[in-house]
Amino acid sequence: MIEKHPENPIIRPADVSPSRDGYRVLGAFNPGAVAFGGEILLLLRTAEGCVEQPGRIRVPTYRCQDGDGYPDILEFSRDNPDVSLKDTRGVVYKGRNYLSTASHIRLARSRDGIHFDVEDKPFIYPTGEQEIYGVEDARVTAIDGRYYINYTAVSGDSWATMLAVTDDFVSVEKKGLIFCPENKDVALFPEKVNGKYIALHRPNNSGFGRASIWYAESPDLLHWGNHQCLLRPRENPYESLKIGGGAPPIKTDQGWLVIYHGKGDESRYSLFCLLLDGDDPSRIVRRAAAPLLVADRPYETNGFFGNVVFSNGLVVRDDRIFIYYGAADESVCLAVARLEDLLDSF
Amino acid sequence: MIEKHPENPIIRPADVSPSRDGYRVLGAFNPGAVAFGGEILLLLRTAEGCVEQPGRIRVPTYRCQDGDGYPDILEFSRDNPDVSLKDTRGVVYKGRNYLSTASHIRLARSRDGIHFDVEDKPFIYPTGEQEIYGVEDARVTAIDGRYYINYTAVSGDSWATMLAVTDDFVSVEKKGLIFCPENKDVALFPEKVNGKYIALHRPNNSGFGRASIWYAESPDLLHWGNHQCLLRPRENPYESLKIGGGAPPIKTDQGWLVIYHGKGDESRYSLFCLLLDGDDPSRIVRRAAAPLLVADRPYETNGFFGNVVFSNGLVVRDDRIFIYYGAADESVCLAVARLEDLLDSF
Repeated sequence: MIEKHPENPIIRPADVSPSRDGYRVLGAFNPGAVAFGGEILLLLRTAEGCVEQPGRIRVPTYRCQDGDGYPDILEFSRDNPDVSLKDTRGVVYKGRNYLSTASHIRLARSRDGIHFDVEDKPFIYPTGEQEIYGVEDARVTAIDGRYYINYTAVSGDSWATMLAVTDDFVSVEKKGLIFCPENKDVALFPEKVNGKYIALHRPNNSGFGRASIWYAESPDLLHWGNHQCLLRPRENPYESLKIGGGAPPIKTDQGWLVIYHGKGDESRYSLFCLLLDGDDPSRIVRRAAAPLLVADRPYETNGFFGNVVFSNGLVVRDDRIFIYYGAADESVCLAVARLEDLLDSF
Repeated sequence: MIEKHPENPIIRPADVSPSRDGYRVLGAFNPGAVAFGGEILLLLRTAEGCVEQPGRIRVPTYRCQDGDGYPDILEFSRDNPDVSLKDTRGVVYKGRNYLSTASHIRLARSRDGIHFDVEDKPFIYPTGEQEIYGVEDARVTAIDGRYYINYTAVSGDSWATMLAVTDDFVSVEKKGLIFCPENKDVALFPEKVNGKYIALHRPNNSGFGRASIWYAESPDLLHWGNHQCLLRPRENPYESLKIGGGAPPIKTDQGWLVIYHGKGDESRYSLFCLLLDGDDPSRIVRRAAAPLLVADRPYETNGFFGNVVFSNGLVVRDDRIFIYYGAADESVCLAVARLEDLLDSF
């Protein structure tokens, strides 16, 4: 019913040039996706580390000045007792966390949706204290003829969701944080429902439950309220740790189609289908019992952080849905299905 | 300069009747405060536990049905291997957290601001799944002639901030969650600034930093955005763990006066003064170096949870500021200062 593309991964880190000397691209993954001007555009999360040097721990860091951002390198001796390594994703220095990679958003363009040209320069780059640890996992939503991009802004104040807007995918205007920490996996609906803009979002939950998918409303895309918990993790091996939203929901004649991710046993990620009511997206119509897509190919099980499949970009072309997804926090993959088959599958 | 009232605590748990048979009031504390109809009203956080029975662990729990809420009792044998106790505040059953107390909001009324009559019945009670573990720490703000009440709604999805509104302090209308989990310590400004409603809020921070005070804007009090980190904990013994906002800011000729709390070494809470720019409350004018109020009296150092002073209710009468505060998560206290002296003190 759904086919992982034989040319997967369709974009690898080696296809992306570093944003400065001394950096190396460790991941090109979790792409936002949109049809624009006859092309399919991907907004790649491009994760960069530093070129290694013997005896040194080097982490990428952004400096921000006068509304502009530039990449720098933080460097420690491996013997420094104040430095310790977490898993592949973190460095702790004097009790403070640093990411071993820093991400920005890079554009890739394609006519067929399979073969992409990656641009040389970053498209969205950290430009302020709110993004000082990087910008990650963009979603693109076409609303009223403009293209809204929301992404995770990571900083010393934890992670939150920034909104930006573009008309041409050349210049982009940042509009501020629309969901405060700790919140990510935000998906904007492509049109108002009952006079309100709608979003799915994923607040962190360190307290009584597990991180779940929430519903919110807005009069203007900038201010959000009427928060309601929409979907909680189930007791199954795919959702045991948490769940979160993916790409912007797709309007179908059966309702709003959502492909969300679950983080399950042993930190494995999988994708699931969900259908929300067309007239009231705070109402669940049905939820797939079994995952749509799991990490079972070598390029999904092995990589920067293995056993991860994570989708935040979908494009519908004719009767087919192109599901772009990040594999192993490292590369971009594609799975294709007929939209009708997908809706019939759960 | 500031005087703790000689009659402190001015309200004790024994002054409050339980909301049902089998409950006992363990805390009457952290009051919201407002001048209304010639009286000063306090919105007491009333924390109830269950009357103890030998060999049993009994925790209060709310049931919600048809938009109404009622109190119930969850009961375990002390021998039950699935049950364990955390500190005084929690019970764990089969890996799930329950609070050892459940809170609602009770009204107390006074002519002199010192001697209060506590009402017999709850004023704000949990009425839905979003509040199923209780409602806590109300703040009252008079805006455009109506009284907006925000409070912490605790549930299996963690803690968030609910908005309600009243005109008469008899009936109250809930307006939905305005800040999603995990967020509390929300303070609404009493008027628009530059055409926007303003709030301080306190997102949780389990990631890279410590919980800080944030600034947000709204067109309508219901939807919030443009989130910005305003004030972070300093490296001192009073703020080492986190900080959070208190009562609604007070307009003075020098700017917006905020009394916030710090949680410091050994989980001690203290109160600090902060002044925000009158025309741009996202700008800090000055911040007190030393605390305004610390827990040093027996009724503050000993109690349900000792060494806590926490204020979410201020009333200005003539030239004096009445600082109502919770002591030891158990009782209500009062400290009084001349507003001018307070502003001169930092």
